Amino acid sequence: MRNFIKEAFADFFFEYETPRQVLVKNPKVGIACRILQLGVLAYIIGWVFIYEKGYQIQDTAISSVFTKMKGLAYTEQNGEERLWDVADYVFPDQGVSSFVVMTNFIMTVGQTQGKCPELADGSNNCTTDADCKKGEYKRTGNGRMTGKCINGTCEIQSWCPVQDDRVTPNPPLLAAAENFTLFIKNSISFPEFGVVRSNLVESVTPSYMKTCLFDPDNQPLCPIFKLGDIVSLSGFQFSKIAQLGGSIGVLIEWECNLDLRIEKCLPKYRFEGLYGNNSAASVGYNFRTAKYYTEDKIQRRTLMKVFGLYIEIIVHGQARKFDIIPTLTAIGSGVGIFGVATVVCDVLLLHLVPKKNFYKTLKFKSIPEEEEEPESLKMDQTKEPKQEN
Amino acid sequence: MRNFIKEAFADFFFEYETPRQVLVKNPKVGIACRILQLGVLAYIIGWVFIYEKGYQIQDTAISSVFTKMKGLAYTEQNGEERLWDVADYVFPDQGVSSFVVMTNFIMTVGQTQGKCPELADGSNNCTTDADCKKGEYKRTGNGRMTGKCINGTCEIQSWCPVQDDRVTPNPPLLAAAENFTLFIKNSISFPEFGVVRSNLVESVTPSYMKTCLFDPDNQPLCPIFKLGDIVSLSGFQFSKIAQLGGSIGVLIEWECNLDLRIEKCLPKYRFEGLYGNNSAASVGYNFRTAKYYTEDKIQRRTLMKVFGLYIEIIVHGQARKFDIIPTLTAIGSGVGIFGVATVVCDVLLLHLVPKKNFYKTLKFKSIPEEEEEPESLKMDQTKEPKQEN
Amino acid sequence: MRNFIKEAFADFFFEYETPRQVLVKNPKVGIACRILQLGVLAYIIGWVFIYEKGYQIQDTAISSVFTKMKGLAYTEQNGEERLWDVADYVFPDQGVSSFVVMTNFIMTVGQTQGKCPELADGSNNCTTDADCKKGEYKRTGNGRMTGKCINGTCEIQSWCPVQDDRVTPNPPLLAAAENFTLFIKNSISFPEFGVVRSNLVESVTPSYMKTCLFDPDNQPLCPIFKLGDIVSLSGFQFSKIAQLGGSIGVLIEWECNLDLRIEKCLPKYRFEGLYGNNSAASVGYNFRTAKYYTEDKIQRRTLMKVFGLYIEIIVHGQARKFDIIPTLTAIGSGVGIFGVATVVCDVLLLHLVPKKNFYKTLKFKSIPEEEEEPESLKMDQTKEPKQEN
Repeated sequence: MRNFIKEAFADFFFEYETPRQVLVKNPKVGIACRILQLGVLAYIIGWVFIYEKGYQIQDTAISSVFTKMKGLAYTEQNGEERLWDVADYVFPDQGVSSFVVMTNFIMTVGQTQGKCPELADGSNNCTTDADCKKGEYKRTGNGRMTGKCINGTCEIQSWCPVQDDRVTPNPPLLAAAENFTLFIKNSISFPEFGVVRSNLVESVTPSYMKTCLFDPDNQPLCPIFKLGDIVSLSGFQFSKIAQLGGSIGVLIEWECNLDLRIEKCLPKYRFEGLYGNNSAASVGYNFRTAKYYTEDKIQRRTLMKVFGLYIEIIVHGQARKFDIIPTLTAIGSGVGIFGVATVVCDVLLLHLVPKKNFYKTLKFKSIPEEEEEPESLKMDQTKEPKQEN
Repeated sequence: MRNFIKEAFADFFFEYETPRQVLVKNPKVGIACRILQLGVLAYIIGWVFIYEKGYQIQDTAISSVFTKMKGLAYTEQNGEERLWDVADYVFPDQGVSSFVVMTNFIMTVGQTQGKCPELADGSNNCTTDADCKKGEYKRTGNGRMTGKCINGTCEIQSWCPVQDDRVTPNPPLLAAAENFTLFIKNSISFPEFGVVRSNLVESVTPSYMKTCLFDPDNQPLCPIFKLGDIVSLSGFQFSKIAQLGGSIGVLIEWECNLDLRIEKCLPKYRFEGLYGNNSAASVGYNFRTAKYYTEDKIQRRTLMKVFGLYIEIIVHGQARKFDIIPTLTAIGSGVGIFGVATVVCDVLLLHLVPKKNFYKTLKFKSIPEEEEEPESLKMDQTKEPKQEN
Repeated sequence: MRNFIKEAFADFFFEYETPRQVLVKNPKVGIACRILQLGVLAYIIGWVFIYEKGYQIQDTAISSVFTKMKGLAYTEQNGEERLWDVADYVFPDQGVSSFVVMTNFIMTVGQTQGKCPELADGSNNCTTDADCKKGEYKRTGNGRMTGKCINGTCEIQSWCPVQDDRVTPNPPLLAAAENFTLFIKNSISFPEFGVVRSNLVESVTPSYMKTCLFDPDNQPLCPIFKLGDIVSLSGFQFSKIAQLGGSIGVLIEWECNLDLRIEKCLPKYRFEGLYGNNSAASVGYNFRTAKYYTEDKIQRRTLMKVFGLYIEIIVHGQARKFDIIPTLTAIGSGVGIFGVATVVCDVLLLHLVPKKNFYKTLKFKSIPEEEEEPESLKMDQTKEPKQEN
């Protein structure tokens, strides 16, 4: 037993097997196959490794965004002067990654619960009380019908008076929003690599931020953006989008090669409308919000239909770093492709070249079924069977 | 030197090496090995390429969601009629991807800061002033204890009167929310492929949206959903979930094969409760919100404990498209697996078949250590050593 | 034709080709090559399979988060006692994944629209009316200049009186927030594997939640966190961060091996400051919010500059499960690497070992260009050309 193990061990460790090959000196086949093999090598090295960075492992970012709007707008309606500041025109207040900047609005002050006529917008018309079924709602109605028809429209239980939103103010009331500024602070981390980064990179100092304004060519790293610039860089015209509102995405893209210095890991800002060209189906951006209060012991509310710019900061981060596994996987697969090239060359050699029969002879040693196993053959250390004659 | 380089170049480009092989005519081994090789080929083509689409590269979506609720509810409490509209029952107002639709509530109007007795809910009881330590808080308390015991409960500094939430209204006050409708607009983009898409696909026109209502079988692409349908498709009963609230996820799934026409890239809507069956630990969904105002120069607030449906739109998008690298990687690895099949067949041939010793002889040319290197042997262009005799 | 197909079929299925090899008994080369081959095998099995779990396919989680703050704070300002509860200090109210807990504030009650002097903070100074251009705005101004200079600062149209935020209260007014508690409910699902999980795992029962408090060592699965603990575990000091505010990320990490029991799929909670050390550029966290009301028929608002802890719950989930494709891909690439090892050994054998010429002779059968193809050679079943003599 010990001898058997010892012999098996010696056989395993002290021997080495290598495939036998035929070396064909045929220039046409030689050149064709070398070109094929060099092509595969060029693909592996050039495309997989260099262009697609196949030797690197990839990780997606975890991100957090903080925003702060700044700016003031002034309106004069019916002799009433009014200044609008951040607490008035940003929804919500907290500085999150998606928010609305109000650019236009319809305000109905001091609504109270009660009964009043519906809006005469063409869908609530009636001629007699029978047209207004008590307790029911019209599809685009503003309240619960009471059963009465008053002056051509149904009477409803609702917050009264009903808001008249048939005409949206033009020009937009807060057109001055074009000059508002947005400050974005974005922190990303790549957990696989233990890297944490912020868009306030090395070159963005407090003094720089006091005066800078984002410009895609001259100041691409400034985290302060003029709202009008954001709109125009998205391909919209501010005066047009401000009346009925719109949705804009601010994309912060991080493409970091962590094999380089960390200072080269910089954000790129892009701006695009969020609902593309398919705007026929759904135009603008608006929502209704109300401020509730009590006056003379009656609960009241001021209803605002807010039109504005819905801004969403979307962070998309990918980092790459050298790792042994994708490298060896790429090499391993490359060797496999090399094998395919070899098969193609073999086909060339054995089927398309004039001397193919000769080459086949040399490549293959054919063993017919019926040939007897010569008794003189032993397992190992045998010389070439040429001794048989 | 020049000759050396010229010769090496000729050797490299004009030669071609191909492995020498033994061609064994043994039906049993032949069939077994062909079946194994065909099996590997079937796996590579059938599973990796066709089923798992291994020739395609994958990308995850970046997405943005806009929502709009629509609907009216009517309540009559203590003779007081009230109509509830969107500005009243949706939190927050802005139409974001996650929001609450109020279905039930407990309202305490006109709270003011002051001292009043705690809620007699069993955890705030006392018999003497000593049970109520001034300046401290009970774990489930509503205020800061003043040190007095009044009528069996501790007196607290708090917004008074304390909200009595021991009984939740049943049936839910805004049970009419079942008929509210939700409009979802979802824009996704696949940055790797430069594709932008919206759930308002080609078949969803403005006129279609005026009348459609989502149905998983008949109208699977309508972006307008009835709240009651969303609840029932999640597996809940509206009347039950509306009383204490609940959380529902609306999943929009995009699985797009970008090798096909873009019109085939369509969203699928799924609905599921967000906290599964593990509801024993934490039932329902509620939060407290207050509307602040000043009346008679005193700051007051109306506190509402809101029970409702927390709805979260979760978008999950994946697109696939043909790419040369995963294709060649799959082929390369497949060739490697083919190599494993070859090794298995060799084992079969060399160890399990009766003529194995004979085959070993033909496959291996064994070189013993002690054999001298014949002087007449040269490096290249040598004919078969049969000349030695 | 039929015979041809039958013969081709027999040739394909009843034959088997195996490469011919030279078996070299050279201990040095043998050991070197075996060590290299064993090294590759160890890499494939040890690193790719066991360490990096290359036999498993990976999926990223879809997640939903619900939060609820609890706690009370008491302030006494100018003899005015006030209790702050959840509806007062959390923004927004709904219990979403990112929110602000107010720890400090500057409150200006009852602002009205009108004209008043700017804040004397050094950037709004003037000596004559000419310094204040009517209709313009100063960069850090609070309103629209009217053109008058009053008592050294420009007069502005604004919400009056202007909020004086030159001094932030110290100690923070709601320092008691340190004892507030946060309850987090997190539901994740791995769509690829059809697995749904919640952070209220099997060991987290309703009775456990009544008394537990998160501790990284003793109670790592308790979903109730003390705000002071969250701050200190992030590396901050509560008293310092509470004055000007800060941003903290609560990371919930799921790393699940789905080949094991589902009970082993547990969340890990980590806490870190969101904007790292780069705080020189942007300190603290604050925003402005206002509560609007009408008093004596005049619209008023109470403006609050809120300083607080911005808390963001970030969920990062990855699940892994055995899958046949990554397993076979890893095997296939590994075989490719094995091929590279073979090439390296061949180089060793043919170029670095003393007997290299001898080995080359045995390995390669060289075919010169000019050799004629013997007429007696046939395509198949040919014996060794030794017959030629």
